[in-house]
Amino acid sequence: MSVSSLNIKVTPTSQSRISELDQNNLVFGKQYADHMLACYYENGEWNTPEIIPFGDLSLSPATSFMHYGQAIFEGIKAYRHPDGSIAVFRPEDNWKRMNVSAARLDMPEIPAEIFLDGIKELIKLDAAWVPEGENTSLYIRPFMLGMDEFIGVRSSLSYAFYIITSPAGAYYSKPVRIYVQDQYVRAVPGGIGFTKAAGNYGASMLPTRTVKEMGYDQVLWTDAFEHKYVQEIGTMNVFFIVDGVALTPNLDEGTILAGVTRDSIITLLKENGIEVQERPISIDELVEAQKSGKLQEAFGSGTAASMSFISDLTYQGETLYLPEINTWSISPKIKKQLDDIRYGRTPDTHGWIFRI
Amino acid sequence: MSVSSLNIKVTPTSQSRISELDQNNLVFGKQYADHMLACYYENGEWNTPEIIPFGDLSLSPATSFMHYGQAIFEGIKAYRHPDGSIAVFRPEDNWKRMNVSAARLDMPEIPAEIFLDGIKELIKLDAAWVPEGENTSLYIRPFMLGMDEFIGVRSSLSYAFYIITSPAGAYYSKPVRIYVQDQYVRAVPGGIGFTKAAGNYGASMLPTRTVKEMGYDQVLWTDAFEHKYVQEIGTMNVFFIVDGVALTPNLDEGTILAGVTRDSIITLLKENGIEVQERPISIDELVEAQKSGKLQEAFGSGTAASMSFISDLTYQGETLYLPEINTWSISPKIKKQLDDIRYGRTPDTHGWIFRI
Repeated sequence: MSVSSLNIKVTPTSQSRISELDQNNLVFGKQYADHMLACYYENGEWNTPEIIPFGDLSLSPATSFMHYGQAIFEGIKAYRHPDGSIAVFRPEDNWKRMNVSAARLDMPEIPAEIFLDGIKELIKLDAAWVPEGENTSLYIRPFMLGMDEFIGVRSSLSYAFYIITSPAGAYYSKPVRIYVQDQYVRAVPGGIGFTKAAGNYGASMLPTRTVKEMGYDQVLWTDAFEHKYVQEIGTMNVFFIVDGVALTPNLDEGTILAGVTRDSIITLLKENGIEVQERPISIDELVEAQKSGKLQEAFGSGTAASMSFISDLTYQGETLYLPEINTWSISPKIKKQLDDIRYGRTPDTHGWIFRI
Repeated sequence: MSVSSLNIKVTPTSQSRISELDQNNLVFGKQYADHMLACYYENGEWNTPEIIPFGDLSLSPATSFMHYGQAIFEGIKAYRHPDGSIAVFRPEDNWKRMNVSAARLDMPEIPAEIFLDGIKELIKLDAAWVPEGENTSLYIRPFMLGMDEFIGVRSSLSYAFYIITSPAGAYYSKPVRIYVQDQYVRAVPGGIGFTKAAGNYGASMLPTRTVKEMGYDQVLWTDAFEHKYVQEIGTMNVFFIVDGVALTPNLDEGTILAGVTRDSIITLLKENGIEVQERPISIDELVEAQKSGKLQEAFGSGTAASMSFISDLTYQGETLYLPEINTWSISPKIKKQLDDIRYGRTPDTHGWIFRI
């Protein structure tokens, strides 16, 4: 065991599994790098983080989070740059957002030095796991769990913070078919829709599987009150280009995740001279825009695909088709700019790149 | 290892911890009986359940439920009857409700023979853990978790079902002070409020702790749309006696847990000739009833306390006091009848008692 300069205890694996990794056949979320970070919160403070070999957790079946859902996570990616160096995209923003989730779930803030230095040390040690192929990345999954061995209903007093990583292959960017959900609800003002809480995802499994079986790729969630205003797509934020203007739902109601990719795309759109309106967007407005030929482009945004183009939207049995993607002028350009920054093919003028 | 008549593999503990149990100082949810039940779902079917010594689970940090919240549970109690026998209160109803939760969270149904026979065999083996003191019980916690070692967002393909038990002391039935929540939201139609999903509880931790720090015991949740119609109290259903009529929110909107205790109380109220109205109840109606002296009694209902009497309700800064509890004529009688059935002090004419 050694102690790193950042006061993280490091216990390297005695046997790397890197030889098992097939760089040409990366399957997201199935293979994990050699190490993980673990840090425990007890008696009101975080202990020294440790980097240890990736392996099973030993947990009492009475561990609080298994029963009462104090469980939050983040998703971040590290990219291999052309010079061989490794860069993580905007992890400070994920750190801030994790603490927004923590506050709402009544969990402790995770300090920047544990979250960010933890990522840095972990990826330094597992640098060989950051893939080199085009459009590949190392997915970074920080998460926090309520750890009391107690099944009374109350906020846990002890917590665990972990970071695991998984090499991710090139994302297949087939345009997605969207079903506008007007039965199930993901989020409501006063709820936890703006957090990356495990509970939000559990609630979305049935509605998502149902539309997949109908031949669609994702759900477009609508508001709880009228099923009229769009919120987000599956696990992505959503943008529409209507008559040259970029529209995306505003965050004020606390029903939508404040995506880091969403924020990056808004910045790039504005730099490209595209007007961006963050405001309520009704499905009626989209139907009308489509009928008058003004609905030009649409996409979801998120860490996984950066931007997922939308081919069509189905609402109450009617399918609205977007124009052919090869006619789009805005979204493909923004996607290229964003990916060029992530992969180090263009200078980082925004301070978005966090070097390992 | 032996095989029970119910086809449950039983591996008894080599060293019982029963001598550590202080019957006069039982703390709910901190001590667990010697054994637990574990059963795994793979390839579309449940394997043979096993009863094993209570102990830690070994779980990959990439286990699906830790990230995406496919986690549901139930709460049931076993009571020691005067003749020394053990009875569980209405576990068939908890089994049915667990499968309602499972369906909404896109998890597999748990068969009755695993759930009910599992409880029976487990409690037979751990009969010494069912306390004998007045108003004590053995709390039974069945729960199900999504077990895939995969962090892609999708319903898990493998699941685990566990039952753990914890001896519970006499419940201290001090009347509760209630704060009517009009900022945070627990449940909305189209959501998962009617399920016992872990995510519902995680979302309630902050609002609950906040009102506790203000001097109240529990939150009374209101509807997401107008914050006007009451839903439930903390983790209990709620009843009001207004002018001799029992009012409780109706279940139709899917925002309220269908409590087994709630159902039992409705049955007993009717048998006692009390009119029961299951319908939307606005806070305005309660304020008006209180001002005109018609709000006579109020209580929460749940497995823990059976019935928790309410001393006062605070809504937007104004506190509505209930009459002194020693003047109440209905709720204390119903509570006694319910507890007499649970503890075997009166015959079970409803088929609510499940004998071990």
